[in-house]
Amino acid sequence: MQKAVGIIAEYNPFHKGHEYQIQQAKEQTGANIAIILMSGDFVQRGTPAIFAKHQRTAMALLGGADIVFELPSFYACGSAEYFSSGAVSVFNALNSIDFLCFGSESGEIDTCRFLGKLLADEPKLYKEKLRSFLKQGLSFPAARKSALAEYLKEKDIPFSEDFLDTPNNILGIEYCKSLAAQNSSIAPVTIKRIGSSYHETSLSSEYPSASAIRRELIAAWNTQKFLSDTLKNAQPPAVKDYLCALLENETFLIEDDFSLLLKYELMKNTPESLCAFSDMSPDLARRIYHHLNTFETFTQFAEQLKTKELTYTRICRALLHVLLNIPSDLPAISPAYVRLLGFKKESSSFLRILQKNSDIPIITKAADYKKLLPKEVHSLFEKDLFASNLYETVKCNKKSTAFTNDLQKPPIIL
Amino acid sequence: MQKAVGIIAEYNPFHKGHEYQIQQAKEQTGANIAIILMSGDFVQRGTPAIFAKHQRTAMALLGGADIVFELPSFYACGSAEYFSSGAVSVFNALNSIDFLCFGSESGEIDTCRFLGKLLADEPKLYKEKLRSFLKQGLSFPAARKSALAEYLKEKDIPFSEDFLDTPNNILGIEYCKSLAAQNSSIAPVTIKRIGSSYHETSLSSEYPSASAIRRELIAAWNTQKFLSDTLKNAQPPAVKDYLCALLENETFLIEDDFSLLLKYELMKNTPESLCAFSDMSPDLARRIYHHLNTFETFTQFAEQLKTKELTYTRICRALLHVLLNIPSDLPAISPAYVRLLGFKKESSSFLRILQKNSDIPIITKAADYKKLLPKEVHSLFEKDLFASNLYETVKCNKKSTAFTNDLQKPPIIL
Repeated sequence: MQKAVGIIAEYNPFHKGHEYQIQQAKEQTGANIAIILMSGDFVQRGTPAIFAKHQRTAMALLGGADIVFELPSFYACGSAEYFSSGAVSVFNALNSIDFLCFGSESGEIDTCRFLGKLLADEPKLYKEKLRSFLKQGLSFPAARKSALAEYLKEKDIPFSEDFLDTPNNILGIEYCKSLAAQNSSIAPVTIKRIGSSYHETSLSSEYPSASAIRRELIAAWNTQKFLSDTLKNAQPPAVKDYLCALLENETFLIEDDFSLLLKYELMKNTPESLCAFSDMSPDLARRIYHHLNTFETFTQFAEQLKTKELTYTRICRALLHVLLNIPSDLPAISPAYVRLLGFKKESSSFLRILQKNSDIPIITKAADYKKLLPKEVHSLFEKDLFASNLYETVKCNKKSTAFTNDLQKPPIIL
Repeated sequence: MQKAVGIIAEYNPFHKGHEYQIQQAKEQTGANIAIILMSGDFVQRGTPAIFAKHQRTAMALLGGADIVFELPSFYACGSAEYFSSGAVSVFNALNSIDFLCFGSESGEIDTCRFLGKLLADEPKLYKEKLRSFLKQGLSFPAARKSALAEYLKEKDIPFSEDFLDTPNNILGIEYCKSLAAQNSSIAPVTIKRIGSSYHETSLSSEYPSASAIRRELIAAWNTQKFLSDTLKNAQPPAVKDYLCALLENETFLIEDDFSLLLKYELMKNTPESLCAFSDMSPDLARRIYHHLNTFETFTQFAEQLKTKELTYTRICRALLHVLLNIPSDLPAISPAYVRLLGFKKESSSFLRILQKNSDIPIITKAADYKKLLPKEVHSLFEKDLFASNLYETVKCNKKSTAFTNDLQKPPIIL
């Protein structure tokens, strides 16, 4: 009997910490299959991924993943809450996942489950406190943290406020909340993160972070340093070799490769029409409109728009939604499909089980989407296609190479 | 008493032939003021102008023009008929222009007037013949030519068919037709073109064409040849000096500088939504959609879309309308404003006469447009602003220089 552990990931790019998480997830749960639900070509912090989804899939498979699916862009570029509930819904709909494993700073699954359940239930007292902190002008994460702390104190439940200060703990609670809210039979498991923290920029530690790798990679590229040396401490050897070979013919993408397109699209809008895009507030739309003459690049512009209330990531996410043409009124339905990005040959029997059990179509050949999906879902899948085709277009433009439509890209088989 | 001769132009870029036309126009009409109505940053063949409108204005003033106005982009990028009727309407509305002077291959004003009047009146027999040739699948210019030839033959009016084979004669007839259709008091005058024909690509003749200059300029730029030598045969000395100084800090734009933006915009559309843009036919929209995966550059794509029925220029114009966001259902009203791009100091008294007599507001400070124009016209003026700001954005992106909004650009005064 095969057991599967699910992991929600971006692998931007894949590193040793990711490899460790997959190994530990299998060991701690006794699962023999690791199923990854990975963001496509754009990620949750509102930026393009540094490598395309099929390339990141190949690296994940080389690093220990067994099957990789694409998290629809609709969820992948959404707020943490949206991202989490969408991803959990997809795993639920697959009907064959036993565990959901996530990294956290604390490594305490009981606390994550307890807080996740509490946030899913939203007791009256907690809700009142949350509302009052929001009224005082606190951002949502800050208000939630304070409301939780006060609520738990009044209920005499021991709780360390620090728990809510780290991004992976917070995301872990979100996953647990989504599992509770969806009455999922999937059991949450957490692996204590080791090595560098999320924002750590050095590559010298034993487990460098993805952002450190991105930074180093861009610097190495610009100075024509030997990439292989740069990456050998950061990535499993097979992943590193793949990446170095890839970069001999390919390039990577950063936010600023989309600068001209973003300015063009922003120029076409008014403050009113901007508000039709997902994650755009009237206040942010006005700021965009009034600062547009000083637009230089994607990152410079997002930096310039920052305020006490509007975080950099929140702004990037709204700008990305403009660029990807994702309106705020897309039908907020539960996931209606999942696309297969790649798998290991030896997992094909489990893939057949998934295909048999799944409540939603598993799309292995993208060009078949019109046959496989009900009509009202076509536009959602087309948003994923548009995002990937835009990514590929910008990459082809940067490298002067030929374009391949995402519809023509088969899953990676290793 | 001052007399004014109007010239409709693109000056893309200004050359000796243009200087000759202004001199001759003044001499032959006895006018002492030459008023130019010039396309903005995008021109009638569906491409960006090689230099921005304010730079082309400076060159025109150095080459003999007295006052330069901007032909609204709504007309400037339209078909020959639309371009001509829009431009003539603007001159009419100014109420102070005595002559309209245009270059032609024939130099025969009587034939232009006669044919223009005939096309404005559209006698029944001519219309029937036109309809029948169109039904046979001929393009509009070919059908019109055949219908005219047959009509004149039946009416026993002597006419050389060659007359309709050259682009400036055809445009001249369009101007005369618009003057006749609008019962204008402006008298048409034509100057026989000298030197290179429109499509001539050599710079060695005495009067090189604008397209020869563009080609040579791009080649010189790419090979870092000394531009001053290249241009001294082609442009009046003052214009050449201005251009050489300009190019020390500035760059020029070609269609392919807009390739990525165009592909992005086309990707966002379906064959149905493309049809909402001006000059787009359902057939062309379908071709665009089906060929999009092989898009490399603006010019390569337009070349690829060509058919027997769809000319290259027609395709460029439709693509440009997509890029400039010009829908086919913009209110087809008569010109409601004209923007001053530049003038010679000694013409300021005539400018005041124009301002007094004009039926439409003369916009000297673009930022005032909301005060000067009725609300229903704002969106038309905003299309001009958008076009210029897009041009400037692409130029700033190419040269990494700071952006200046078109609203902030004052007229050039020489």
